[in-house]
Amino acid sequence: MPNPTAAMLVIGDEILSGRTQDTNTSHLAAKLTEAGIDLREVRVVGDEPSDIVAAVNALRARFKYVFTSGGIGPTHDDVTADCIATAFNVGISVRADARAILATNYKNPDVELNEARLRMARIPDGADLIDNPISKAPGFRIGNVHVMAGVPTIFHAMVESVLPTLTGGEPLLSITVRIEAPEGEIAETLANMAKASTSLTFGSYPFIQNGVFGSNIVARGTDKDRLNSARKELEALAKTLKAWDPFDYKNQYPRSRGHPTK
Amino acid sequence: MPNPTAAMLVIGDEILSGRTQDTNTSHLAAKLTEAGIDLREVRVVGDEPSDIVAAVNALRARFKYVFTSGGIGPTHDDVTADCIATAFNVGISVRADARAILATNYKNPDVELNEARLRMARIPDGADLIDNPISKAPGFRIGNVHVMAGVPTIFHAMVESVLPTLTGGEPLLSITVRIEAPEGEIAETLANMAKASTSLTFGSYPFIQNGVFGSNIVARGTDKDRLNSARKELEALAKTLKAWDPFDYKNQYPRSRGHPTK
Repeated sequence: MPNPTAAMLVIGDEILSGRTQDTNTSHLAAKLTEAGIDLREVRVVGDEPSDIVAAVNALRARFKYVFTSGGIGPTHDDVTADCIATAFNVGISVRADARAILATNYKNPDVELNEARLRMARIPDGADLIDNPISKAPGFRIGNVHVMAGVPTIFHAMVESVLPTLTGGEPLLSITVRIEAPEGEIAETLANMAKASTSLTFGSYPFIQNGVFGSNIVARGTDKDRLNSARKELEALAKTLKAWDPFDYKNQYPRSRGHPTK
Repeated sequence: MPNPTAAMLVIGDEILSGRTQDTNTSHLAAKLTEAGIDLREVRVVGDEPSDIVAAVNALRARFKYVFTSGGIGPTHDDVTADCIATAFNVGISVRADARAILATNYKNPDVELNEARLRMARIPDGADLIDNPISKAPGFRIGNVHVMAGVPTIFHAMVESVLPTLTGGEPLLSITVRIEAPEGEIAETLANMAKASTSLTFGSYPFIQNGVFGSNIVARGTDKDRLNSARKELEALAKTLKAWDPFDYKNQYPRSRGHPTK
């Protein structure tokens, strides 16, 4: 049976303006990979209600699990909860249990649970709360959509709260072999390995480091033995390429290896 | 006239598995913001042709400019160029000009312009090439879609090649004021500022640093004078909050300010 699928929706103008680098996606991605859930699509939209509603409805229809980050704080630009209610066509109001959780944070009489903060207790009808051990204000799950905070420490904590409630598949394992030669040198061999294997997929992730063009070859699958065989095959391939001497002009790869210095 | 809109499509299994942190999006986002082009949506999909084709067609219909990153190298998992041809319903073949550019990289007789490398000269019919000063293999533009490499140094160089060809609007300017108090303390004032201003938008980006909850308040707009007024107003607001002494128990914000130590 194929693994369950998932999508992530990142919400916030600050990501689209380049002000903030989203790191929640890669965190969630790694956690889902471990859990045997395939993250298949990510979308980023701004704080624009119609864009958020459209994205939520498109993703929840196509994937088993949807995760959102951002837009559930107390300020006027936090519109995610309302958009989720609109997407699911349900009501939304301050809920007693969420309000009680928030109130534990505001026992000090000088810090009031004011109207702005009460916005964080507005939960779409029928949702379950997601625990927030960092700053109390809860996330929530409705249908297959898990609504979480954008602040990374809080997002991470909420992901930990949510993970045990998900049904995963077989964890996708991977091995990586670093090849210090341009991709073009190994592409054919790699394509043949990919064609020959029904249970593994192969990816080539090129890099440029200190003027050297290389690639990390990644094999993915659920069968440890086959992955180990693939590792051996790739390491053998890497060895044949080691014969490339970057200082031997005849064998030099122009541009990528730089000019000979001796 | 509103600024032109844009979308970014990041292509690659390595982003969805959490193996690689995408940074191309935030780079492009910052460049577009400077150029007065509004990045409105980002999608990430894997190396799955049907997903890539669907995303390209959805985005190119809705936004003035579309930018893609990833999947244009020589290996079997590089399927972007073929998917773009499919999305535009045009042919694709090795093109003489792209081949000639590649050939300049392979003058050394020991490094052949092999079949794998020739894949990088396959360009959809009717596309214009995008210059790649780093490793030669070109990107391309077809219609409103700009197809670029995933390796960040190459992506950045291609963005520089593309930017002068785009028609921007008024650059979106922003000011940031850091507030060392929880968002809930300033949410109401901020909402009122946002309501009162027709030309600026306000965002609140909370952080937790050394146990202190705070927020960066960002105002965005194209009018420098109004942004400066907003800055003054926000700085005055920040000053009223400075009266909060984290060591004064009565004024202490529970949890966020930590326990009094003196």
